[in-house]
Amino acid sequence: MLPARNGGRYTEDFLLEVFNILFGYIQKTFTGKSKVLDFHHPHQLLEGLEGFNLDLSDQPEPLEQILVDCRDALKYGVKTGHPRYFNQLSSGLDMIGLAGEWLTATANTNMFTFEIAPVFIIMEELIIKKMHELIGWREGQADGIFSPGGTISNLYSVLVARYKFFPTVKTKGMAALPRIVLFTSENSHYSFEKASAVLGIGIENVVPVACDDRGKMIVSDLEEKILKEKEQGHVPFYVSATAGTTVYGAFDPFSEIADICEKYGLWLHVDAAWGGGLLLSKKHRFKLNGIERANSVTWNPHKMMGVPLQCSAILIREKGLLQACNQLCAKYLFQPDKQYDVTYDTGDKTIQCGRHVDIFKLWLMWKAKGTSGFELQVNKCLENAEYLYKKLKTRDNFELVFPDEPEHTNVCFWYIPPCLQGMPKDREWNVKLHKVTAKIKARMMEEGTVMVSYLPLKEKPNFFRMVISNPAANKTDIDFVLEEIERLGHDLKL
Amino acid sequence: MLPARNGGRYTEDFLLEVFNILFGYIQKTFTGKSKVLDFHHPHQLLEGLEGFNLDLSDQPEPLEQILVDCRDALKYGVKTGHPRYFNQLSSGLDMIGLAGEWLTATANTNMFTFEIAPVFIIMEELIIKKMHELIGWREGQADGIFSPGGTISNLYSVLVARYKFFPTVKTKGMAALPRIVLFTSENSHYSFEKASAVLGIGIENVVPVACDDRGKMIVSDLEEKILKEKEQGHVPFYVSATAGTTVYGAFDPFSEIADICEKYGLWLHVDAAWGGGLLLSKKHRFKLNGIERANSVTWNPHKMMGVPLQCSAILIREKGLLQACNQLCAKYLFQPDKQYDVTYDTGDKTIQCGRHVDIFKLWLMWKAKGTSGFELQVNKCLENAEYLYKKLKTRDNFELVFPDEPEHTNVCFWYIPPCLQGMPKDREWNVKLHKVTAKIKARMMEEGTVMVSYLPLKEKPNFFRMVISNPAANKTDIDFVLEEIERLGHDLKL
Repeated sequence: MLPARNGGRYTEDFLLEVFNILFGYIQKTFTGKSKVLDFHHPHQLLEGLEGFNLDLSDQPEPLEQILVDCRDALKYGVKTGHPRYFNQLSSGLDMIGLAGEWLTATANTNMFTFEIAPVFIIMEELIIKKMHELIGWREGQADGIFSPGGTISNLYSVLVARYKFFPTVKTKGMAALPRIVLFTSENSHYSFEKASAVLGIGIENVVPVACDDRGKMIVSDLEEKILKEKEQGHVPFYVSATAGTTVYGAFDPFSEIADICEKYGLWLHVDAAWGGGLLLSKKHRFKLNGIERANSVTWNPHKMMGVPLQCSAILIREKGLLQACNQLCAKYLFQPDKQYDVTYDTGDKTIQCGRHVDIFKLWLMWKAKGTSGFELQVNKCLENAEYLYKKLKTRDNFELVFPDEPEHTNVCFWYIPPCLQGMPKDREWNVKLHKVTAKIKARMMEEGTVMVSYLPLKEKPNFFRMVISNPAANKTDIDFVLEEIERLGHDLKL
Repeated sequence: MLPARNGGRYTEDFLLEVFNILFGYIQKTFTGKSKVLDFHHPHQLLEGLEGFNLDLSDQPEPLEQILVDCRDALKYGVKTGHPRYFNQLSSGLDMIGLAGEWLTATANTNMFTFEIAPVFIIMEELIIKKMHELIGWREGQADGIFSPGGTISNLYSVLVARYKFFPTVKTKGMAALPRIVLFTSENSHYSFEKASAVLGIGIENVVPVACDDRGKMIVSDLEEKILKEKEQGHVPFYVSATAGTTVYGAFDPFSEIADICEKYGLWLHVDAAWGGGLLLSKKHRFKLNGIERANSVTWNPHKMMGVPLQCSAILIREKGLLQACNQLCAKYLFQPDKQYDVTYDTGDKTIQCGRHVDIFKLWLMWKAKGTSGFELQVNKCLENAEYLYKKLKTRDNFELVFPDEPEHTNVCFWYIPPCLQGMPKDREWNVKLHKVTAKIKARMMEEGTVMVSYLPLKEKPNFFRMVISNPAANKTDIDFVLEEIERLGHDLKL
């Protein structure tokens, strides 16, 4: 094989075989008859399945076995592009995005300098500019970076905000700071707690703000909490509002939160990891009104825009902060005496050194679809969610977790099996319903026909959280989910 | 195109076209005659090159244009797999690894739970176990995780060490801690400063330990610095030793450092991001003797093992620490009442939420090469470095930065153009030599025939740092580098 001399033909044959395996898998993913997964327990995979032994040895395996291994790795995995996979916020398998990721793998470079990633660095600049425009930031001073996922993007926002108010933290650490606190709604993503643990702020300095029944931050509670912290001598510095919460898909009231942040001089971050995609839709972008007043925004194109994993942006309104916060000017990488404009060596903005190229697939999809193509995709997913919502309202054996129309594609519901119907909804009933949902999910995994996530929330027993981000999913797939849940759950006796 | 009904044929044609573009690029990469890069300045790429316009529009581009864009993105990039690309610690383009990355892109899943990445989660466990064995940890309690690059892996080590000694930091933050300090050699990677800035420890609490001329940590200086910090009332907690420094490729004396760490009760981390690959070689692994006494190790298979970017492991000797340090038990993801053994839902060990699948390509390469195949690769690269070193010693117009034989594949040298030969090596001479190196690199970029990195170090003027991690590079390529540097630099007048 290449790079061996005369290895060209042999390599081409091998890679074509791989191509055929991958394309076969793609076809299976989309031709509805296939399963979403073929479940096996961890111990089964560890023990080895027929012809698929995961152990590593000292000696090489023949190439034929490698091809079998590729086939099996896909066979025993989960088809996240399947139209009946509704398990996570990221789903789908976009053909242009896939081609982009194959090319990225082939280019096999690193984002630290223009020197070794010239095209990708420029693409990142252009896309970040575009995202700024869509947010509505007028300064024209695009800044931001693609990071390894929304949690790291959110971490960046806390890091940069802390640096903005307390630049000495970079050299002296948290010891030089008063007790700083940040605010985020009780329904926000757990990444703010992760960030606070990592950054040395401490989880107890993340103040949870109450939400209404719909999952939106209650702004009066935010203000009360800010005042309470100040009274105790703590220093509020940062608020994160969410555009599309993980479970309910709720959008916080950004303008009112921005007013509070202005009043108290706090950094406003909007975690639009999930909801950012709606900025592309003329019909739905009003839900993010006020986002243009944020100081930073997290936006994951790998969620609602259907870009292959991973692709997450942290966007910062004030140019230069990211660089000032993170740069260390390592001379072996960021030589100031290069022959080109070294402001394009953006790698020193990051908390990483090497950084994976996540930009090309997004750029290629944007070329192929245009902004208007993304808009169609987003609108379709939201229509499907509305369809699901309306359908659930007409079904007696399903119950919505909250009665309002979905703002995003999250729809949360219970299936009530016959044995629980018409019974008093007391503690015991809740305990049973909690088990019903988990039991149905277990059967779902064993059967492999569909995948929907479930969870409990506060006093609410386990419920299904359906999310739609795969443009391949159609109304028939949504119909199928409800029929299948009923089929899997109707005979449950507890 | 898929998922559209009847889109199969059309999709296959498109993806096959992409395949052909990628395979054409691969062939060009390895058939020596092609350039390493076709350099263009940032403004040229921004303005657009013939047929290659990076701007995004509202409307979709035709598919033919998308294919042209793919071709151009590769054309104006850098061939990091080219046998004459010696610019970074990561180089080469392994065909099995590439196939693995294509498959990973097609599977398009996320590492947070066994539920959606069953095969990959098991592969990660097996590989981490294998890496533990190679390090020489006998406990059989493999723990660790793949992270987005060496800098994040090193950050993990500081994070986990801090948690081990001061578990309250997770909830209370750095405010609850004394002034903690960590130690790493002045030649270590800048990631420890990045980590300290991020973690709220502060850069000034990273104490640089002096190195000898060869770039190895001076252990007596480490002990002195520890005592000095203690005298000042600071609390030493962590030492990072390096296996293969970034510039000199030096290996610190691990056993002696481990003695010091034991004596003072400090966490010992070994940053083997670059040098870890040598553990696979019976001939070279003695250079890492003592690594088995470390509490944590960073090891990047995307460097010396030639795995496509990115692939970096943080390995922790004490099982459970990583989980305790980072877990938040988000119920929407890590439901405790799933039908399978949920200890395989390893996603709560990380500081991320979503995590890219970096394991499959490494697993597939290990299957295809066996441990013995990696050993051959590593040995070949080290032989080539030795060849380069010996060759440089015989050439009057080249000078080594340090006289010793290379321990890793880093070889550092100056080219001395005729105008500087035989002149007194005074300040002025150094200033000129500094410029010569940068000037040659500039010409190298313009010509695109070869890529070697350069940098200054302390009082030393800019020198070339050649590193060899591409098994496709042969002695003729190394000969070529020296000839080419001479050709590009011999006429320089300063």
